[in-house]
Amino acid sequence: MGGDHGPPVTVAGADLALDRFGTRPVRFLFHGDEARIRAELARYPRLADRASVRHTETVISGDEKPAQALRRGKGTSLWNAVEALRAGDAHAAVSGGNTGALMAISKLILRMVGGSDRPAIVAGWPTLTGVTAVLDVGANIDCDADQLVEFAILGSAFYAAVYGGDGAPRPTVALLNVGSEDMKGHQEVRDAHAILRAGKLDLDYRGFVEGNDIAMGAVNVIVTDGFTGNVALKTGEGMARFFAATLREALSSSLMNKAGAVLASGALKALRTRLDPSSVNGGPLLGLNGTVVKSHGGADARGLANAYLVAANLAGSTYLQDVARNMARLSAPDASPEVEPSTGSAA
Amino acid sequence: MGGDHGPPVTVAGADLALDRFGTRPVRFLFHGDEARIRAELARYPRLADRASVRHTETVISGDEKPAQALRRGKGTSLWNAVEALRAGDAHAAVSGGNTGALMAISKLILRMVGGSDRPAIVAGWPTLTGVTAVLDVGANIDCDADQLVEFAILGSAFYAAVYGGDGAPRPTVALLNVGSEDMKGHQEVRDAHAILRAGKLDLDYRGFVEGNDIAMGAVNVIVTDGFTGNVALKTGEGMARFFAATLREALSSSLMNKAGAVLASGALKALRTRLDPSSVNGGPLLGLNGTVVKSHGGADARGLANAYLVAANLAGSTYLQDVARNMARLSAPDASPEVEPSTGSAA
Repeated sequence: MGGDHGPPVTVAGADLALDRFGTRPVRFLFHGDEARIRAELARYPRLADRASVRHTETVISGDEKPAQALRRGKGTSLWNAVEALRAGDAHAAVSGGNTGALMAISKLILRMVGGSDRPAIVAGWPTLTGVTAVLDVGANIDCDADQLVEFAILGSAFYAAVYGGDGAPRPTVALLNVGSEDMKGHQEVRDAHAILRAGKLDLDYRGFVEGNDIAMGAVNVIVTDGFTGNVALKTGEGMARFFAATLREALSSSLMNKAGAVLASGALKALRTRLDPSSVNGGPLLGLNGTVVKSHGGADARGLANAYLVAANLAGSTYLQDVARNMARLSAPDASPEVEPSTGSAA
Repeated sequence: MGGDHGPPVTVAGADLALDRFGTRPVRFLFHGDEARIRAELARYPRLADRASVRHTETVISGDEKPAQALRRGKGTSLWNAVEALRAGDAHAAVSGGNTGALMAISKLILRMVGGSDRPAIVAGWPTLTGVTAVLDVGANIDCDADQLVEFAILGSAFYAAVYGGDGAPRPTVALLNVGSEDMKGHQEVRDAHAILRAGKLDLDYRGFVEGNDIAMGAVNVIVTDGFTGNVALKTGEGMARFFAATLREALSSSLMNKAGAVLASGALKALRTRLDPSSVNGGPLLGLNGTVVKSHGGADARGLANAYLVAANLAGSTYLQDVARNMARLSAPDASPEVEPSTGSAA
């Protein structure tokens, strides 16, 4: 389980999540200090009926290095949560613990579906038209063309599972690039573009987009390397804070502005929560043979509930099968008559 | 001259700029269609007294490739403006024309101060504490460590010249990187960090910053490769549009919000112009032996005035000397007893 706030928040978040699961018979398997978890569960009888607890004595601390976590992680709550997934005791794992440790342990236990060195982290970015999935936002700093193509496969399947819904069209996918004619980006981006454009994959690939297209919601899935994606996400986060602070200042600069701000305070409050691309909690680690979702360490119960919802949506979807199918298409020999450029649906 | 709107805007912008030059005896040398320019100048007698015109018959069009512009650019207004700079007839050149052509022609005529293949483009990004200079935002897509170090030298000298003022402390400089402990970015970024940290240069180097530090104004100058910088700048631009649209929508969602919006409309208008990092016109091409400023093709007279002001500030400063001094320090042998880690001022 983990996270900065421990069982009070992880359990309260699970109870909140029950409201959002609707009729789905989702159950919770908590890993951690059994006495503390049971004490919290006693406050939520509805959740207690749908929850089990596995006691663990040890935890991985926030500052432990991944290599260290791999060596001495066995028996910790984080390790056991991922192991339960591999063993089939759970369909998804959610953790608010140490990200590097979660990645390393998940990779060791579940293995990767492709050639990436680390699972990709996807951000659900609020946009003018809804949410755009941006990946990788930090795990894989140097990416070759094959990795970028993998991210396109992973992102498309993720988007269909979490935001698509039944009968929705295939998600639109694009590569993040720079704009001017003379500079069409790194070689890796151009090579990935050529592979994606060739049409072997079951993807609705739309070509290149630029940074300003992210918040405009130009496409559903935007693919980039972890360095660029991390900078973009954090730039957006900084802009959201800048915007909130500037707005506050502008609206307190005169009596008339102040009166206006009071009248419009409901709208301004709603706005603030919608603006920050890093405010949507629950970043799945994509590329693993299994569903692992990273929750912010500092997330509150509402944030945890969102992470559980993302995990349940992924686990209850055809995400893993969609990924496997496209990975097989990718490694199939070129120009094979059996592999037509597809027009079918991935969702 | 160039730009989408031609003489009416380039001349009107020059007249506006006169107000902002104060007592400085700045003069204008316009290149282009003499009859059209003179017709505009007739409307601004104050400017006409301080302006000369050189007639040109040909222009470089917006869609011309740099190689083409180099071949047949001689005698165009763009070429002549840069040539006048080299000849000493002008101290700075401002152009709203084709960016690729401006770069190629400037590089050919003026030469680069260092090893970069193209001049770096710097953005003046509005932040909570003022303006942060971010470079490169698009010219040099793949950058090695030496180029990043050059950008730090160029950006620091630029910031001191344009935003620093007399007696201001040296600008603070940082490298843009990703945050988590396990992923400290590309090799190039780490190598540049090592060079900058070694203290050979006359720079106030502060180490790494992340994307969210840009809009917070954590430092004065942020250095990155042209790919990452372009994505960050355009992501910020998209966020600004997203905020404006979301705010508009939120404030028209109920009668009370609408009333509030009317009361606060002055503040909201001021806000919109402050938010967009791409709204500050006048991006100097850094790294040339001379001051060349690129204005947006679509800029209005106010935008042009700002570009002229940036050009005049740079040309009237010790920018070129500051750059030359640090480039010499950079190429000086390591551990030379003459080169002390400096604590002096660059401004």
